[in-house]
Amino acid sequence: MKLKLKLKILNIIAGRPVSFIHPANARKLNIHAGERIEISKGGKKIISITDVASKIVKENEIGFSKELLRLFALSNHDEVEVNIALSSESINIISKKLHGKELSRKEIINIIKDIVTNSLTEAEIAYFVSAVYEKGMTLKETIYLTEAIYKTGKSIKWHTNKIADKHSIGGIAGNRTTPIVVSICASAGIVMPKTSSRAITSASGTADAVETVSKVDFNIEDLKKIVKKTNACLAWGGSLGLAPADDKLIRIERLLNVDPESQLIASILGKKLSAGSKYVLIDIPYGNNAKVTKKEAKRLKQKFIKIGKHFGLKIEVVLTPGNEPIGNGIGPVLEMRDVLRVLKRENPPIDLENKSIFLASKILEMMKKAKKGNGTELAKSILNSGKAYKKFLEIINAQGRHSFSLKNPKFKFNIYSSKSGKITEINNHKINSLAKLLGCPADKNAGIYLYYHVHDKVKRGDLVLTLYAESDIKLKEAIFIIKRDSPIQID
Amino acid sequence: MKLKLKLKILNIIAGRPVSFIHPANARKLNIHAGERIEISKGGKKIISITDVASKIVKENEIGFSKELLRLFALSNHDEVEVNIALSSESINIISKKLHGKELSRKEIINIIKDIVTNSLTEAEIAYFVSAVYEKGMTLKETIYLTEAIYKTGKSIKWHTNKIADKHSIGGIAGNRTTPIVVSICASAGIVMPKTSSRAITSASGTADAVETVSKVDFNIEDLKKIVKKTNACLAWGGSLGLAPADDKLIRIERLLNVDPESQLIASILGKKLSAGSKYVLIDIPYGNNAKVTKKEAKRLKQKFIKIGKHFGLKIEVVLTPGNEPIGNGIGPVLEMRDVLRVLKRENPPIDLENKSIFLASKILEMMKKAKKGNGTELAKSILNSGKAYKKFLEIINAQGRHSFSLKNPKFKFNIYSSKSGKITEINNHKINSLAKLLGCPADKNAGIYLYYHVHDKVKRGDLVLTLYAESDIKLKEAIFIIKRDSPIQID
Repeated sequence: MKLKLKLKILNIIAGRPVSFIHPANARKLNIHAGERIEISKGGKKIISITDVASKIVKENEIGFSKELLRLFALSNHDEVEVNIALSSESINIISKKLHGKELSRKEIINIIKDIVTNSLTEAEIAYFVSAVYEKGMTLKETIYLTEAIYKTGKSIKWHTNKIADKHSIGGIAGNRTTPIVVSICASAGIVMPKTSSRAITSASGTADAVETVSKVDFNIEDLKKIVKKTNACLAWGGSLGLAPADDKLIRIERLLNVDPESQLIASILGKKLSAGSKYVLIDIPYGNNAKVTKKEAKRLKQKFIKIGKHFGLKIEVVLTPGNEPIGNGIGPVLEMRDVLRVLKRENPPIDLENKSIFLASKILEMMKKAKKGNGTELAKSILNSGKAYKKFLEIINAQGRHSFSLKNPKFKFNIYSSKSGKITEINNHKINSLAKLLGCPADKNAGIYLYYHVHDKVKRGDLVLTLYAESDIKLKEAIFIIKRDSPIQID
Repeated sequence: MKLKLKLKILNIIAGRPVSFIHPANARKLNIHAGERIEISKGGKKIISITDVASKIVKENEIGFSKELLRLFALSNHDEVEVNIALSSESINIISKKLHGKELSRKEIINIIKDIVTNSLTEAEIAYFVSAVYEKGMTLKETIYLTEAIYKTGKSIKWHTNKIADKHSIGGIAGNRTTPIVVSICASAGIVMPKTSSRAITSASGTADAVETVSKVDFNIEDLKKIVKKTNACLAWGGSLGLAPADDKLIRIERLLNVDPESQLIASILGKKLSAGSKYVLIDIPYGNNAKVTKKEAKRLKQKFIKIGKHFGLKIEVVLTPGNEPIGNGIGPVLEMRDVLRVLKRENPPIDLENKSIFLASKILEMMKKAKKGNGTELAKSILNSGKAYKKFLEIINAQGRHSFSLKNPKFKFNIYSSKSGKITEINNHKINSLAKLLGCPADKNAGIYLYYHVHDKVKRGDLVLTLYAESDIKLKEAIFIIKRDSPIQID
């Protein structure tokens, strides 16, 4: 039985796309609260979880939460057709993976399509992520997953084929090299339209950090204008509709800090393909507290190269040390401050600067702007000349610059060393969870400032780190945790 | 920062407990839609996902969905304290299990408490279920899980220690023995306050079926009155607050038909302990298409006995053949009809009758109402004398009998045999998924009627089964599936 209902846009942000229907219509559809309905209009359709509500919607009305409206842009009072949504075939496919069986191309595409059209609940997606995490995926399955993530979204065609890109697999606190690398490379004439994700397992993604100084969400047309003007961009991939499945997967992965290898590869390469990139530098930080060990990093490198080749990408992979955080600040604003210190040549964190130059040199060489071995020199000279900073300002101006609101957050707490000695460990995982506890990445100003690195010597009473938060309860919780289990070891 | 907000009860059923706060309060709390808040009043507190909404709530108001109100019974305009909820320690514990590590007593209790207080989202619970499914639990962990499920809910104390109970691990379509067994045993003077669950992996649980003829949801006081009057009850465990964690786990397990062994044991024994049972008969159906093979059934039997002993329960375990559905009807109403045919001695499904007599005989012997070996005879005589049916009517009258509304559903479709031969298989899994596709257990009248059993001979053109549904689209989908992949094999 199909019903024709009139759309009512509700002022409700539910954290997920939800519709609201009247009990009388729910009875007619034979549907119960929390179940899924199919909403269609003019050949387009979407699936939505539905709440049953009187008062806020009348009989024969259907209410849309803001999130649902974003997925299915309609106007108030539009008439839509509503029907029960049949239980998805994907359930059986996820169950198959949970039992350790290999999935076919068709099955993987089915799941990813269902994620995009909202046909799977968050709990069901969690089962999928968990099954892939536990059982792994073959190279074939990873290729299908990459393809599915790529093809279920939009993609960008550029005026040239020489599109460069970089990506880090993440997991290292701080490590905000991207704005620096992009500014250097774009100064050298390389076209580098960089789209980044928000934080998955770390406290801040590039998109979270750049958002503290400019807009990051654009449609494809606006993005093209920015790139035409500046050779580059520093945008959030999520708003472009490039890989909508990936954004939902990341949301679920983030809940438990789960990031299965095959999903990591498919997520990165799927987005690179959608973004129209051809030359891609992949950074794999390895080591204690990094996402991968050196051995795993080497295996991952081979997989990136093989799968990239399958899709016609030129891929270069570098393995970089990932034992400790990079830069001093952890958290969107604090990381952006580090970036600006490097670009403006004002007391730059040396580890962040060196890593950025290294990555930029690889891209300069790959794109033939420098001969093999000469990339570092070129990158350094661009940075020192102030050209990179100028390029950065150009990019963020084109993106719509904010009045650099890099305020100090409301609450802070200093941690001092309880003994003298040498720092032997700064644990990435613990730093990341602390920063998240402090409110990152949603609270832009929250985070951690580190005054030392591994191998530095400290004296008893030295200030070793500062915690920043927007809420006193979050700060208190972080203080409790850091006192119980410090991320910094001194011996 | 804590806010004092005024409660507004909303006419919204969301399928999960949700609160609604105004954007201005959300900003003050530094909280975003879909995140969790802690609501407290008078020493009691609960965690809730919150939606951000203007219009339906004003500034300084907090709206409760019907589900949230059920968990935290307050009145309109009550003042509550609202604060951000810190991210739960359980996340790290679930992550630990996902990595295959053994959990401590404290850790398991932590997770179960968080499930009860609503501190974990459905996606997070799915990760937990999936981790337990993949990694299993040791005997120790299973004991802790049982204890946690038992102790985070209420429990019942009876006037006597001689409380009998039975439980099937489920998975067999039909198999509605409980109302028959309870009626026979209670007739013999055994006190048997049976609380049952709703369907997990099958099309109908005992509670779903009994609900077609009487009320099944009671508080503990009312339940005691029913048992005092009739020696027994056939109630839904969920409404008693006996094992609230288990009800939530089952809801998530049901999504993907996942039912990890340790959770199955803890769920059953936890509920038996809460219900105050002392003598428990466990039925483990085994075989092709059953939940377990004979080998697994034997191992499971040992675990039930060991863990039961740990908690001071007298447990007897029987292994019964579970190759095919039991009875003719699959679905709440259709199964209740089978039960009534046995109790009223009107053309009873013989397999359902025999299994019920077998289980009743074991309990009669265990409770010393019959000598070893004489239980079957006693059970048969009670059934044939009409006493069991009288007892059943007594019980459901005491529970609040409906006017037996065992209507035929709106839509039906007959399936005829396409060839002559002997039936070699009736697949439980396929029958269960078909029945669920048809709308079971929510649509009480929906389901399947089977006219034959394995080993029966059929001729081409014989009616082998009928599909029943409340919605034509569900019926069509089931017809499509059954034609593609029949649950019945004829050779």
